[in-house]
Amino acid sequence: MNTGARRDTIAAIATPPGSGGIGVVRVSGPEALHLLQQVFQPRRAVPAFVSHHLYYGHIRAQNGSLLDEVLAVYMQAPHSYTCEDVVELQCHAAPVVLQELLARLATLGARPAEPGEFTKRAFLAGRIDLSQAEALIDLLTARTAAGAELAAAQLHGALAAAIGGIRQSLIELLAHIEVAIDFPDEDAELVDRKEAARRLRAEVLAPVQALIADAGYARLYREGARLVIAGLPNAGKSSLLNALLREERALVTAVPGTTRDSIEEGMNLGGIPVQVIDTAGIRPAAACSDAVEVLGVERARQMLLSADALLLLIDAEAGLTPALRALYAELADRAQILLVLNKRDLLQAAEERHLCAAAAAMAPGRPLVSISAKNGEGLQELQDALLALIAPAADSFGRSARLAPNRRHQAVLMRVEAACTQCLAALEAGAPVDLLSVDMQSILETIGEISGETSPDEVLDAVFSRFCIGK
Amino acid sequence: MNTGARRDTIAAIATPPGSGGIGVVRVSGPEALHLLQQVFQPRRAVPAFVSHHLYYGHIRAQNGSLLDEVLAVYMQAPHSYTCEDVVELQCHAAPVVLQELLARLATLGARPAEPGEFTKRAFLAGRIDLSQAEALIDLLTARTAAGAELAAAQLHGALAAAIGGIRQSLIELLAHIEVAIDFPDEDAELVDRKEAARRLRAEVLAPVQALIADAGYARLYREGARLVIAGLPNAGKSSLLNALLREERALVTAVPGTTRDSIEEGMNLGGIPVQVIDTAGIRPAAACSDAVEVLGVERARQMLLSADALLLLIDAEAGLTPALRALYAELADRAQILLVLNKRDLLQAAEERHLCAAAAAMAPGRPLVSISAKNGEGLQELQDALLALIAPAADSFGRSARLAPNRRHQAVLMRVEAACTQCLAALEAGAPVDLLSVDMQSILETIGEISGETSPDEVLDAVFSRFCIGK
Repeated sequence: MNTGARRDTIAAIATPPGSGGIGVVRVSGPEALHLLQQVFQPRRAVPAFVSHHLYYGHIRAQNGSLLDEVLAVYMQAPHSYTCEDVVELQCHAAPVVLQELLARLATLGARPAEPGEFTKRAFLAGRIDLSQAEALIDLLTARTAAGAELAAAQLHGALAAAIGGIRQSLIELLAHIEVAIDFPDEDAELVDRKEAARRLRAEVLAPVQALIADAGYARLYREGARLVIAGLPNAGKSSLLNALLREERALVTAVPGTTRDSIEEGMNLGGIPVQVIDTAGIRPAAACSDAVEVLGVERARQMLLSADALLLLIDAEAGLTPALRALYAELADRAQILLVLNKRDLLQAAEERHLCAAAAAMAPGRPLVSISAKNGEGLQELQDALLALIAPAADSFGRSARLAPNRRHQAVLMRVEAACTQCLAALEAGAPVDLLSVDMQSILETIGEISGETSPDEVLDAVFSRFCIGK
Repeated sequence: MNTGARRDTIAAIATPPGSGGIGVVRVSGPEALHLLQQVFQPRRAVPAFVSHHLYYGHIRAQNGSLLDEVLAVYMQAPHSYTCEDVVELQCHAAPVVLQELLARLATLGARPAEPGEFTKRAFLAGRIDLSQAEALIDLLTARTAAGAELAAAQLHGALAAAIGGIRQSLIELLAHIEVAIDFPDEDAELVDRKEAARRLRAEVLAPVQALIADAGYARLYREGARLVIAGLPNAGKSSLLNALLREERALVTAVPGTTRDSIEEGMNLGGIPVQVIDTAGIRPAAACSDAVEVLGVERARQMLLSADALLLLIDAEAGLTPALRALYAELADRAQILLVLNKRDLLQAAEERHLCAAAAAMAPGRPLVSISAKNGEGLQELQDALLALIAPAADSFGRSARLAPNRRHQAVLMRVEAACTQCLAALEAGAPVDLLSVDMQSILETIGEISGETSPDEVLDAVFSRFCIGK
């Protein structure tokens, strides 16, 4: 990490692309103020730009003609996003204007910023750690408020604090061990191996394992889950989809990389962005009329494999027909299944009980709810059952208590867990203290990858390249 | 115009949609400061928000959990975009965060703003006139730097000043006439009809006519032109398209509302955004093999009708084949045509002269250039010839001198021109001064529609509804 080198001055459009009310060009680096003085004409003469004060004025194009009216602000280092001198020019969000201004700044010596470069500078300056930088990506791409809250907590340093606590315990343990290295003869007295093992277990291993468990839940809120709705024709799949979506929608429907062969919609299930896939195509292979349809059904089946849950919709009026039983038999071993009896409004209470019993007999142990997509009955129960299927312990997921490690953190944490278990065994087997010290130093170094302190450059590059330009 | 009523407080996301570095929520109205105090937690206690100062702090979600770190600024009326109290909260451009903040503000009483409502308030407060508001739309949608400059000049009040000058002359003339109404007996002495007519012509009619002419040019820079490339197969259409596009591209390729049946690309021709359409489909009807192709060709022909210019590419190696002559004959009466001899690199100088002469004989009076798309020869001449065809006087279009009336302004100006001509006739025919006064007052009222002073509400609504939300 080239933290010591004097950095150049970078510039980028910081607002999302497109036209709109406000577009911001951000400049960071030693030349930021000098660039501001060159491109910005304040309406009233400014003897010296005061930090964090908004000035009204104009910018001009390369050829000297008036380009836009802007608000300009200078943020003096270190009180800025990057901890460097930062200048922001708030223009109208006119793509041509923003591009022209950027070109002008480039002519004057500002290098166009790489993706994530502003945030990388904040990291290199020590204002945020790597897990906070990663939280920013989660925040920008969050699809539900719950996901945004997890990300915001991490951005605010919740995970960094937890990791810091674990590191602190490790450092204390290590200091304890290292005293014994200096006085090898007094080993027996100096290191209480039982107590050291207890502390390693309680203050390192247990919190690390809790974080690993958190990662699984956090992933649900971050990446969401895929739910496939299956059923025979006319079971009411579309009505159900509409009824579910009427409830609470996830903000962003499209997930990059998902196929769109079937109808896909995003819904917000208790804070988890759930991609609902209506596979009109899935019906028993035997019922398919030609080879093309078999291919289509095969593709739909592939989708089932990637689904986190399957909702099998049963038409209460038609009942458990042989076709439905065949469909269930085909799907039974493929995914988590929730049986949903639709059109209960058409049944008497006794008929409904009878049908539920028959369905339970067909699919023993599977959750089952009875609804009417038409009049909205049972939708809350359906959502609760779905949530239980997708995130078995999500109901006990108190978000303030849980943290949100991502896949990279999880991988690091699992290496820490393994090393910790090994160190515990060594401790209990009476291994020499200098070996224990090496083990613990290695754990310490591994865990430092989460905050970025000990991350190799390629990890940093991988993280920051996920940002957009201007962030 | 409900200018007198106390207005409510509005809020909207002011940056373009999507995720990115910076997202801004803007609040305007009497409650703006109060709302800021409720949603924003400054890192250090703020006894009183200083206008135009950036504060660092946090915002929380409805449920109290941390949502984002933000920079907040309060702009005290009238020193703001709307001339009202304005608050801007600069968040990370995370869609969920921005939506949550907006929802929170709505709960606290801020009404979600309608499209263009901030700008409408700036207009109603008299900070900008209607032509400046319209210039803002032009700026946001400008596709070339030249277009943005025209819009920026208008935003800065260039057109408003010109209209103001014309109005001033009219008001002086009217005052002159109205003196005569008060002293009807002294009419002959008080109104020098010749001088009044001279002034009406020089200070009103002539500048209005100049503005009408400007409108035609401005439209080219604003809306661009459509250029169709036609030619027989293998004439080098794709090479030419690529060569042209390598030069200078218009920023935004897609134009709303254009069909995309053919290949369309945007280029920047001397500041005019030109949509280049490569109609592979156009060849003589006789050469078409089936009905489907005839249909396709018919559609391509429709495109020609809407084109501002047609570039007929001639393969220099193949020469003026009967097929090419047939194609020219079919197209000849349809559009402005530029003949382009391609592949000159394959010819001797004498051959090239001979072919040019033959082409000139086939298409007398048509402009003709000889190029090699392959090695780039003659491309500048081609662009100059195209510019001359699309905007015959564009080369003399000194942008600092020209203004950019839009279609609405042009329609108003044409009504002013007609009324003015009529008034001149009345003046010279010796019509009574009270009639002349009525005529002039009517001209004055009509011209006021450009600045919005006398525009009916539906005109205002039409203008502001073209804005996006948050502007």
